[in-house]
Amino acid sequence: MSLKITNKQQVTELLDQYDYFIFDCDGVLWLGDHLLPHIPETLQMLKDKGKTVIFVTNNSTKSRNDYLHKFEKLGISGITKDEVFGSSYASAVYIDKILQLPKDKKVWVLGEAGIEQELHELGYKTVGGTDPKLVEDGVKFKPDHPLIDKLDPEVGAVLCGLTFNVNYLKLSITLQYLLQENKSLPFIATNIDSTFPVKGKLLIGAGSIIETVAFASGRQPDAICGKPNQAMMNAIKADNPGLQANPKKGLMVGDRLNTDMKFGRDGGLDTLLVLTGIETEENVLALAQDVAPTYYANKLGDLYEF
Amino acid sequence: MSLKITNKQQVTELLDQYDYFIFDCDGVLWLGDHLLPHIPETLQMLKDKGKTVIFVTNNSTKSRNDYLHKFEKLGISGITKDEVFGSSYASAVYIDKILQLPKDKKVWVLGEAGIEQELHELGYKTVGGTDPKLVEDGVKFKPDHPLIDKLDPEVGAVLCGLTFNVNYLKLSITLQYLLQENKSLPFIATNIDSTFPVKGKLLIGAGSIIETVAFASGRQPDAICGKPNQAMMNAIKADNPGLQANPKKGLMVGDRLNTDMKFGRDGGLDTLLVLTGIETEENVLALAQDVAPTYYANKLGDLYEF
Repeated sequence: MSLKITNKQQVTELLDQYDYFIFDCDGVLWLGDHLLPHIPETLQMLKDKGKTVIFVTNNSTKSRNDYLHKFEKLGISGITKDEVFGSSYASAVYIDKILQLPKDKKVWVLGEAGIEQELHELGYKTVGGTDPKLVEDGVKFKPDHPLIDKLDPEVGAVLCGLTFNVNYLKLSITLQYLLQENKSLPFIATNIDSTFPVKGKLLIGAGSIIETVAFASGRQPDAICGKPNQAMMNAIKADNPGLQANPKKGLMVGDRLNTDMKFGRDGGLDTLLVLTGIETEENVLALAQDVAPTYYANKLGDLYEF
Repeated sequence: MSLKITNKQQVTELLDQYDYFIFDCDGVLWLGDHLLPHIPETLQMLKDKGKTVIFVTNNSTKSRNDYLHKFEKLGISGITKDEVFGSSYASAVYIDKILQLPKDKKVWVLGEAGIEQELHELGYKTVGGTDPKLVEDGVKFKPDHPLIDKLDPEVGAVLCGLTFNVNYLKLSITLQYLLQENKSLPFIATNIDSTFPVKGKLLIGAGSIIETVAFASGRQPDAICGKPNQAMMNAIKADNPGLQANPKKGLMVGDRLNTDMKFGRDGGLDTLLVLTGIETEENVLALAQDVAPTYYANKLGDLYEF
């Protein structure tokens, strides 16, 4: 059964117990463009106590630099790039370190600028993505569109994530690459969240867009880089030997049971669910012991307020 | 083992044996806008011998009227509306006859004009579909788009099919309807073909687009109206009592094993696969007895040429 954080004594014990605090962003620190209460103070308190803070996000439309801008804009200062792990960055690292795709190969991107920027930083050229030629005709599609036939022979991997600017041309070109060379090009997903919560509504998530090209090609992604997949956790641990040696010194804080809490649990960390996102107290209390978070709280700011 | 049609004797026996000839269109009669050899002559020969000819198609972007125009344009004359069964028509009939959706309810359409026209003919109002407001912003999407929040309370069913003009807004509004009222609105698919063949390439099919909103909503369609589903076959049989009484008097002619041949076989008809579409002779000869078509031929026009 999860312990609810309701008083100062609990917070003190929690701060004593953990050295690494890993935070999901949307639903924990902010909701869309609206900062949640006492977030800067909570983060500053953790840093003042010498804690390591790390931010993780499955939203691949933004790069780590974009996230730094967002932190600044919302009044959370002093965050550095090495404290931020996004699914776009995790995917670029996967392509570089695990796939070891040669740098003279290109990556076809179904997704937005966040993915492109992270790949470019690691020295890869991208095709697709935000290329304006792909949206010249808007939502209109002609089967004889020249780009359908002009596949780039230098493409060595296909990376798919969330795009709000999806059209039939982008989906169909992605399909061509997935079918090419007897379906042998690596197929990587930034994450497979089925929905994307915006202002209390569930919109189409990366996983649902990827499902289109997966179903059409008869393939499933060879790798999924976002939470709850451990690729991102392994990258975090590699940067933090203390966490690597003793995962129980780490606390994963998030608002989703099936991604954030699973991500922490699978990595051997303790977990704290906050109720500012999509889960409810009833959901938490109904969970079986083996999937219940270690703690839960009404909001992250309670750690500062208590 | 399938019998290959290679001579006049076989054709004569085949014409003696069957009274009902059901044809898939694309890949059998034409490839895109290119008529295959001796199609008008073959169809005329069948009609001259008093055979009933019926045309079926899973392409929901066109209505039956659109198909009549296409037949005319390609030089196949004398086809009437009651000889054509499309997945858009089959879906409209399903909503009317099986669901018995009251006529004061509307249907949300993820799809093109073919679906709208068939629903309108049966007296239903549609929302979504080709509404220009849905593509005003082209491929751009803003999460605060007013249409996301303005769901029509009169919508009583969601019908999804192929659209070349897909965008994030259309997919996300479809998702809102599928989640609405505790996921209780009927969810109907015109067909679930994963790909759409155009000029030797496989593009995104209706099934792959529908998979996006299915995955996002955690639902699967309550009904699938196209081939190989038998809803369309039952409608054909209802119009043709002789076929109803004795399905073995019918021959299903198509170019796809997993849709056309299965459609005929599941309906109790004999089957003829033509090699002008996506299957090869090697594929046919490798099939187990229970899924092999009754006959195969290089092309439909062979029935006339021999």
